Amino acid sequence: MSAPTPPPNWQALCTDKRARQLAQIPKEWLLPASSLPPAEQLDVSNVPRECGVLTARELEITEIDDVSVLLAKLASVEWSAVEVVTAFYKRAIVAHQVVNCLTEIFVERALARAQELDAHLAKTGKPIGPLHGLPISLKDQIRMKGLETTMGYASWIGDYSDHDSVLVTLLYEAGANPFVRSNVPQTLMWPETYNHIFGRTVNPYNRKLTSGGSSGGEGALISMKGSPLGVGSDIGGSIRIPSALCGIYGMRPSYGRVPYAGCTNSMEGQDSVPSVLGPLSRSLSGIKAFMQTIISSKPWERDPLAIRKAWDEEGYQLRDHGGDPKGLVFAILWDNSHVVPHPPITRGLEETKKALERAGHKVVDWPAFPYAKLSTNLGQIWNAAATDDYRATTNASGEPIITSMEHETDSLSENAADATVPDFRPAEDGLSAYHLWQLQKEKTALRVQHLAHWQATSALTGTGRPVDAIISPVVAYAAPPHGRNKNRSANYTMVFNSLDYACCVFPVSKVDPSIDVRRPAHSFYNEFDKTNYEFYDPERFKGAPISLQLVGGTHEEEAVIAMTEVVDKALKEYKATPLS
Amino acid sequence: MSAPTPPPNWQALCTDKRARQLAQIPKEWLLPASSLPPAEQLDVSNVPRECGVLTARELEITEIDDVSVLLAKLASVEWSAVEVVTAFYKRAIVAHQVVNCLTEIFVERALARAQELDAHLAKTGKPIGPLHGLPISLKDQIRMKGLETTMGYASWIGDYSDHDSVLVTLLYEAGANPFVRSNVPQTLMWPETYNHIFGRTVNPYNRKLTSGGSSGGEGALISMKGSPLGVGSDIGGSIRIPSALCGIYGMRPSYGRVPYAGCTNSMEGQDSVPSVLGPLSRSLSGIKAFMQTIISSKPWERDPLAIRKAWDEEGYQLRDHGGDPKGLVFAILWDNSHVVPHPPITRGLEETKKALERAGHKVVDWPAFPYAKLSTNLGQIWNAAATDDYRATTNASGEPIITSMEHETDSLSENAADATVPDFRPAEDGLSAYHLWQLQKEKTALRVQHLAHWQATSALTGTGRPVDAIISPVVAYAAPPHGRNKNRSANYTMVFNSLDYACCVFPVSKVDPSIDVRRPAHSFYNEFDKTNYEFYDPERFKGAPISLQLVGGTHEEEAVIAMTEVVDKALKEYKATPLS
Repeated sequence: MSAPTPPPNWQALCTDKRARQLAQIPKEWLLPASSLPPAEQLDVSNVPRECGVLTARELEITEIDDVSVLLAKLASVEWSAVEVVTAFYKRAIVAHQVVNCLTEIFVERALARAQELDAHLAKTGKPIGPLHGLPISLKDQIRMKGLETTMGYASWIGDYSDHDSVLVTLLYEAGANPFVRSNVPQTLMWPETYNHIFGRTVNPYNRKLTSGGSSGGEGALISMKGSPLGVGSDIGGSIRIPSALCGIYGMRPSYGRVPYAGCTNSMEGQDSVPSVLGPLSRSLSGIKAFMQTIISSKPWERDPLAIRKAWDEEGYQLRDHGGDPKGLVFAILWDNSHVVPHPPITRGLEETKKALERAGHKVVDWPAFPYAKLSTNLGQIWNAAATDDYRATTNASGEPIITSMEHETDSLSENAADATVPDFRPAEDGLSAYHLWQLQKEKTALRVQHLAHWQATSALTGTGRPVDAIISPVVAYAAPPHGRNKNRSANYTMVFNSLDYACCVFPVSKVDPSIDVRRPAHSFYNEFDKTNYEFYDPERFKGAPISLQLVGGTHEEEAVIAMTEVVDKALKEYKATPLS
Repeated sequence: MSAPTPPPNWQALCTDKRARQLAQIPKEWLLPASSLPPAEQLDVSNVPRECGVLTARELEITEIDDVSVLLAKLASVEWSAVEVVTAFYKRAIVAHQVVNCLTEIFVERALARAQELDAHLAKTGKPIGPLHGLPISLKDQIRMKGLETTMGYASWIGDYSDHDSVLVTLLYEAGANPFVRSNVPQTLMWPETYNHIFGRTVNPYNRKLTSGGSSGGEGALISMKGSPLGVGSDIGGSIRIPSALCGIYGMRPSYGRVPYAGCTNSMEGQDSVPSVLGPLSRSLSGIKAFMQTIISSKPWERDPLAIRKAWDEEGYQLRDHGGDPKGLVFAILWDNSHVVPHPPITRGLEETKKALERAGHKVVDWPAFPYAKLSTNLGQIWNAAATDDYRATTNASGEPIITSMEHETDSLSENAADATVPDFRPAEDGLSAYHLWQLQKEKTALRVQHLAHWQATSALTGTGRPVDAIISPVVAYAAPPHGRNKNRSANYTMVFNSLDYACCVFPVSKVDPSIDVRRPAHSFYNEFDKTNYEFYDPERFKGAPISLQLVGGTHEEEAVIAMTEVVDKALKEYKATPLS
């Protein structure tokens, strides 16, 4: 008998993978020592402008926030696909050097694709599709032929794909140029971003703060303007949390509107509350361009779980909401009866309320609902077999399952103990299938209860309709220090995964210690709420984005985009002309 | 300490429930002894015509097969709601006395509802809705306020509902008159219909044969013309099998197009392959009226699992199938590479092929697919916790879990042993949640594989489109004797539940021993296939309906109805003018 094969050394695998990643970066895009910000420089958002790596034109290209403008310039050949992808690639690489946001880097391939796009447009006079030439970043789950997909697991180093995921195929057909992949936490089941291979992604506005997770690489990259449009995934807040903590737009679509087939995932086979793919961008036009393009490409012909439901232009025209983007009724979810948000988040809600009222809309208070039941239930559904799932993967390399984002100390982490709040990690023991069915049954009952709750708000609106959309916190605080985004954070997001509501995150403001002062203690809902209250210190969160989410009904992506446009416009007008 | 409460005597509960059921029947609707068919009379389909209980006008009303005609006569006051529901109620009660199809009987309530409907129409000149006055029968899962819902469990005797299910609410709002509830097997997970409370439902064309299940009460009742339209449920074939074995139309919609909220069900919380509600009728106009009415009533405002997808009139106009009900391409699934159908079913496929070709359509052979993988996988998903689920219910009364439809002997069962085919019953040991997730992951992979399989048929059609619809057996044989509809039967239906395809059953012919002679033995796929071959005896199946199903894509109910209309018309024209 031969000796068993020794287990691979996972640390060596990670070291090798990082070396291979570095080798993919053109030397001339590496920051000179003089441009590298010192460790104590927390806000690195201006590094790309100041580092000297990007030309003036490349800065101009990458600083266009509005994706529709970028698409128009690409389609009209004002900017070539090659120069656009070059500009974003350089900025992405610069961003990576200060926030550590990338996984797969493949410059030659993206340039070759851009050359093909330019040649096609020159030859035919027509763009390939609605996303012609647009560089798109992808979370490290979205498989591309010939690339590794590690998804934060050392065990999956060397897993090269022999296929494009369905989404990548559709993006190529629409003319897009997938150009980088972005960092995630091991298991994907964390609201921060850290793994054994690539380490930690940090927040561009304050590197002591988290970029959120699990799509934290996307959040940091797009916030740094290193990509105009990215794709993340959201099973409990993983698109919305990084969007909010990094101050960009991000949509969590309903199950099945964006095709997932061919991607890698965590907890595959967990069919009750599926993860969904969705867009992150610095503009709502980016969110809309992605959703409209993908839905219009008939994803149900490629992915059996994609819903056969065409882009609903009447839905976008708010047919079911009075047919007019005026006179809408929004409800503010001030708190979820579990954790009261910090002062900056409450200010965001107040400003949004004032802005909407000034724009002629009605704003009411969202009636209390026992949301903790929904989030507790979903945590139990995940934990039914989460540890078995993670272990099945980590056993292959022997890498440890990460059990806390706080214990993973590095120069940027804050080691304050917070023992009252358990880490966001799976239970050790899996459940029986029968127990899981009972949890899933409870979840359905809560969904029935919540729909009735929403329908009953027609008594509050005066329009004959129920409330058109909810305006809710995304997280109870702005971006916290590393290791401190614990499970209370997901209470404002994961409930809407269970309910399968379409949600869109939008930025409102940034934390200003001179305004966002500590409040007197309120009557606490529970120990979490007390700990969260005590956690607030204006200086700790200084400069961090304040963001909210607009929540609509299931399969109502079109109306949710339109209503977020309404809110965004109202906020911009409000800020342009502050109340006297 | 007081003594524990003695368990209820489940036999006594059943006896009492049957007595209460009998007490609900008006004495004058009971068949006189002279009209009661003798036990040896197998075909009882003509009893309602011949028994003398129904008037000529009541016979005329109940023998209108086309639901659109019935609706027009109701809306135009040619027939009142009272006389229509009276006619169907009498016929349902007569049917019940010969095929044992009913559970809940509530004559006064249905008559009161009809009087309200007539008064409304007289007062306003307008019908209440598109189903004004239509009597509708409901499987004994679909809760109605004030009625018991036993669903075949002695344990649930006395479970009176305090609410209408969402579907019943929508039916009332559409003007319909839910008027009886119909029999099911204990657990619902059988393709025959027998339980400890109400006993066995039998086939109207031959009482030694099964009506199928689990919506077997609906199948027998509608086939007897005791109801113009019924609602069943289908998790593995439970609408389609009784529709096929009783020779009527029946649709299995995709998940979420018909609201399930508020109903009772088996294995609640099993979210991976959900049961769906759908219509059974003697006309396709009944199927369409139900689907169009329910979908147009925005069920997603009442049931969070209902898909926000309006009735798709363009889908009904076959927009995605060339936009023309001519020149379609159908594929025949001659066999599923697991069990070869009996000669009558193959004749049905052959006649349908000829009829479609004569009508100008193209007919190809459906390429082989490993369907047994899909059905094995689904059986394992069910069995992950099925026994725990059943036991949780039966423990309350002490009633035994029924383990075979064959062992439940009665005067109508055939006791031929068939030891090579295991009974269709759950495993004793439940699985872990992790094991269940792996099965669900395998199921999704098979769905991806089957979608690619279907898309690849565009190479066969010459239209540029993949095959427009599959024509498939529903069961590998016509209605078999009681206890003999074993698990091989569901292989042709349950695979389409896993795939979530919209399916519609249509009748083709009836077994004729002079035509449907035994075939020489073929090369058997497996022991099941051999047993099934040997099981065929033309005389045993004499007079039993031959039915097939048309299978379309997920969420394609509108196109599936339209294409089944195409097939139905082609078959009628073909039969009217046989080939010379």
